[in-house]
Amino acid sequence: MGTFWTVFPKIKVFISTLYLSVLRIFSMKTQSRIVVKKFGGTSVGSIERIEAVAERVCEDAKTGQSPIVVASAMSGETNRLVRLASEINPYYRGPAYDMLLASGEQVSISLLAMAMEKRGFKAKPLLAYQLGIETDSIFSKARIKSVNSEKLKSYIDEGFIPIVAGFQGVTGDDITTLGRGGSDTTAVALAAAIGSNECEIFTDVPKVFTADPRLVKKARELDYLSFEEMMEMASLGSKVLHYRSVELAAKFGVKIHLRSTFEKREGTWVVPEGEVMENPVVSSVTHDANTAVIKLFPIKEKGQKFITELFTELAEKNVVVDIITQSQNEIGQRLAFSVTEEDLANAEVITKKLMPEGCEIFIMRDLAKISTVGVGMKNHPGVAARFFKVFSEADIPIHLVTTSEIKISAVIDKNKLEEAASALHSEFTLDKDEE
Amino acid sequence: MGTFWTVFPKIKVFISTLYLSVLRIFSMKTQSRIVVKKFGGTSVGSIERIEAVAERVCEDAKTGQSPIVVASAMSGETNRLVRLASEINPYYRGPAYDMLLASGEQVSISLLAMAMEKRGFKAKPLLAYQLGIETDSIFSKARIKSVNSEKLKSYIDEGFIPIVAGFQGVTGDDITTLGRGGSDTTAVALAAAIGSNECEIFTDVPKVFTADPRLVKKARELDYLSFEEMMEMASLGSKVLHYRSVELAAKFGVKIHLRSTFEKREGTWVVPEGEVMENPVVSSVTHDANTAVIKLFPIKEKGQKFITELFTELAEKNVVVDIITQSQNEIGQRLAFSVTEEDLANAEVITKKLMPEGCEIFIMRDLAKISTVGVGMKNHPGVAARFFKVFSEADIPIHLVTTSEIKISAVIDKNKLEEAASALHSEFTLDKDEE
Repeated sequence: MGTFWTVFPKIKVFISTLYLSVLRIFSMKTQSRIVVKKFGGTSVGSIERIEAVAERVCEDAKTGQSPIVVASAMSGETNRLVRLASEINPYYRGPAYDMLLASGEQVSISLLAMAMEKRGFKAKPLLAYQLGIETDSIFSKARIKSVNSEKLKSYIDEGFIPIVAGFQGVTGDDITTLGRGGSDTTAVALAAAIGSNECEIFTDVPKVFTADPRLVKKARELDYLSFEEMMEMASLGSKVLHYRSVELAAKFGVKIHLRSTFEKREGTWVVPEGEVMENPVVSSVTHDANTAVIKLFPIKEKGQKFITELFTELAEKNVVVDIITQSQNEIGQRLAFSVTEEDLANAEVITKKLMPEGCEIFIMRDLAKISTVGVGMKNHPGVAARFFKVFSEADIPIHLVTTSEIKISAVIDKNKLEEAASALHSEFTLDKDEE
Repeated sequence: MGTFWTVFPKIKVFISTLYLSVLRIFSMKTQSRIVVKKFGGTSVGSIERIEAVAERVCEDAKTGQSPIVVASAMSGETNRLVRLASEINPYYRGPAYDMLLASGEQVSISLLAMAMEKRGFKAKPLLAYQLGIETDSIFSKARIKSVNSEKLKSYIDEGFIPIVAGFQGVTGDDITTLGRGGSDTTAVALAAAIGSNECEIFTDVPKVFTADPRLVKKARELDYLSFEEMMEMASLGSKVLHYRSVELAAKFGVKIHLRSTFEKREGTWVVPEGEVMENPVVSSVTHDANTAVIKLFPIKEKGQKFITELFTELAEKNVVVDIITQSQNEIGQRLAFSVTEEDLANAEVITKKLMPEGCEIFIMRDLAKISTVGVGMKNHPGVAARFFKVFSEADIPIHLVTTSEIKISAVIDKNKLEEAASALHSEFTLDKDEE
C-alpha cells in the first residue's frame, strides 16, 4: 500500500511550495528588510528637518523595509552643552559630563518618535541604557563592547520603529559617550548586532568628495571608498565618519552607504578594498582645521624619562596626541606634538607640570592639518616627493609631518589651508576638469 | 566579693557616657544628618546660580549634614522642550513626550555635580532609572509608587552627595514625568523613603506670603501653614508647591521647610494642622492666571449621557477639569467647566467631537481663578457672603464658582485679577498694616 504522499503526489509538491513561500516571507520579515539609518545633527537640526526625516523613514517603512533609526543631537545642541560645562570646569571629564552631553540625543529621538507617531507608525525612542549598549569606562571617548540585540529585535517584532539615541552608552550605573561623531559608531554597532550587512549614514552632502568642496572648487564626487581609506580620512579629521564606526564596519563586514538626507540618489559606498572599482594613487585630500601644536626646547636632562611620563599622563587624561616629532642638537632635545584645540588647555597644564627646568614651552594655535589619502600610494613610490614639491613651490611652511602606508599629513598655518588643498588636489589629478 | 562594676563605679559611668556619645555620633552619621534639599528651576537657572547652589550645599556638608540634592530643569528649559514638542504635535502625550521633558533635569543635575566636584566633594548625578523611582503609567502626570532607598543610601555610605533628577520616574522600560512642579514630589518622596522627617524646598522667595506680593502690595509673610491649607493652595494653582508633594508629606509626616536659595534665614514651615500657631479665618489669597473655560448651550437631548462621556474621555486624555457648573432652563442644559490653558486645545477637540447636535460651544480665554484659603473657615460661617460682597462692590463679574471646606474660588477675567486680589486681602484682614 502506498503512503499518503505516493497516492497524492501533487499535494506534496503544493505543500512543499507553500512551505518554501512561507519560509521566504518569514526570512524577509525577520532578516533582510532591517536597515539601520543614522541621521546626524544637521539632519535633525530643526523641527522642519525632523519632520522630513520622519517622512523619509516612514516612506521606507511603507515599501517594506524595517528601519532602525539612530539620531544625533540637534545641531548646535552638543556645543551648547559643552559650553555650559566649560563655564563650570573646562578640564572636567567624567560621568557627570557624559550624562550632560547624552541629554542632546534624548531630545532628538523623542521628537523624531513623536513625528513618526503623527504619521501613524509605532515608534520607540530608546536610550543606551534601555538597549543595553555597553561600553568601556573611558568617559567622553568610550568604546562599545556589546549591544543587547534581543531587546532591539523584540521591539521590531512588536511592530515598533526603534529610534535609538546615538553617541551614548552605559558602563555599570553610569552613562558614557563615544566622542564626537559617535552616533555613526552606534549605527554600525547596531547593524552588526542584528546581523545586517548594510548601514545608511545620512548627512547633509550627497556624496563624499575628493576634498571639501567649500575649500577646493574643483572637488569631485566619489562612488566608492575602501574601509582603509575612510579610516585614514576619519582619523585625519574629515568629519564624514567617526573613525571607530569604520573600524567596526570593516571588522563586521557592514557596508556603509553615505548619502544625503535631502536627496534620494545613491551616495558613496564604503566597502572592502577589493570591491572598490578604481584605485587612483591618491583618492582624496582631507584637512582638519582643529589643530594646535606644543613645542618644547631645550630638553636638557632626562629627556626620554620626561617624554615617557608626559605621553603617559596625556593618555591617562584622554588627551589624544596626533603627530609627534623629536630631534636633538648640541643644546638639548626638541619635542613637538599636535593635539586638538579642545584638548590644548589640558595638554598645556600637564606639560607645564612635568617639563624639566630650563625648558621653554611654545604654544602654536590656528593651525590646520592637510593630508593626501589613497590605497594606491602603497604601490606608487614618489608620492611624498610630489607632496613636498607642492608646499615648496607655494612657499607654505610645514610645521610637522607624518606619514603612513596610505597617507601623508602636514601641519601648516590655517590661513594657508585653502591654497595648499587646491594645489595638492591639482597635483594628484583629482580636479573635476581633469577627469 | 563585689563585681568589677561595684569595685570601679567611676569607670562604669565613664564607659556608659562614652557609649552614649558614640551612639549619638553614630545616629547623627547614619540618620539625623541626611537632609533632602530641592532646588527649583530659577535656583539653577544659570551657571552662576548653579555654582551658588553647589556652594551652599557644600557648606552644609562641611557642617556635618549629609545632603541629598533634588533639582529641577534650568528655568525656561522645560518650556523650550514643550514648544519643540508642540511644533510636531500639540496633542501628543506619551512615552516620547516624557522622555523629551526628562532631559531638562539631566542637564541641571550633571552641571550641579560638576560644580560640587570642583569644590572637592564627591557628587553623583542620578536619573530616575538609576535610583529606581517607580511610578504609575499616566505619562506627564505620573505618581511615584516607590523609591529604591537602598541604592540612595549606598551612595551616601560611599561618601557621595546624591544629586537626583526631579520631576521624572520610570514605569517598565519607559521614562515618566510627574507634571509641572513634580520635583517637589521627588524631594518629599526621597525624604519619606530614607525616613527623614524634614525636607527643604529652596525657591526664589524667602517665605510663603498671604498673597502674591507682585499682585497684592500689602501681602504678609507666613511662618507656618498646615498641610491642608498648602494642599488647597497647590491645587488652586499657587506655584509654591506641587500638590502631590504636600499630600505625600502629610501622609509620611515629612515637614516641608520652604526657604530662599539666596538667603539663610528661616522660611515657611508646612506642618500638621495642630502645629500651626495661629489660625486666622483666611490665611491666604491665591490665584491661578492659567485658566480657560468651555461653555456649552443648549444641550437638549441625552444631556447626562453626553456629560458622562465627555468627562470620561477628558479624564482618559489626562485633561484635568477643575470647576464644573451645570444648570437647566426651558431651552436645554447649560454646562461650563474650566481647564488649564495648556489643556484647552485638547479639551476643545474632545468636546466638539462628542457634543450633541444643536449645541453651541463657547471658549473663554484670558481668565484667572482667585481663591481664599484657611483652615479657620471650617469654624467661621459667613465667609462666602464676605467673599461675594467683595466682587459685587468692585463690580467684577464671576464666571464660575466652587467651594470646599477650607476655600472658595471664583473664575474672573484676568485683567480684574489684581483688583480682586487686593480687595479680598483687605476684606479678610491680611494686609500688612492691619497686623
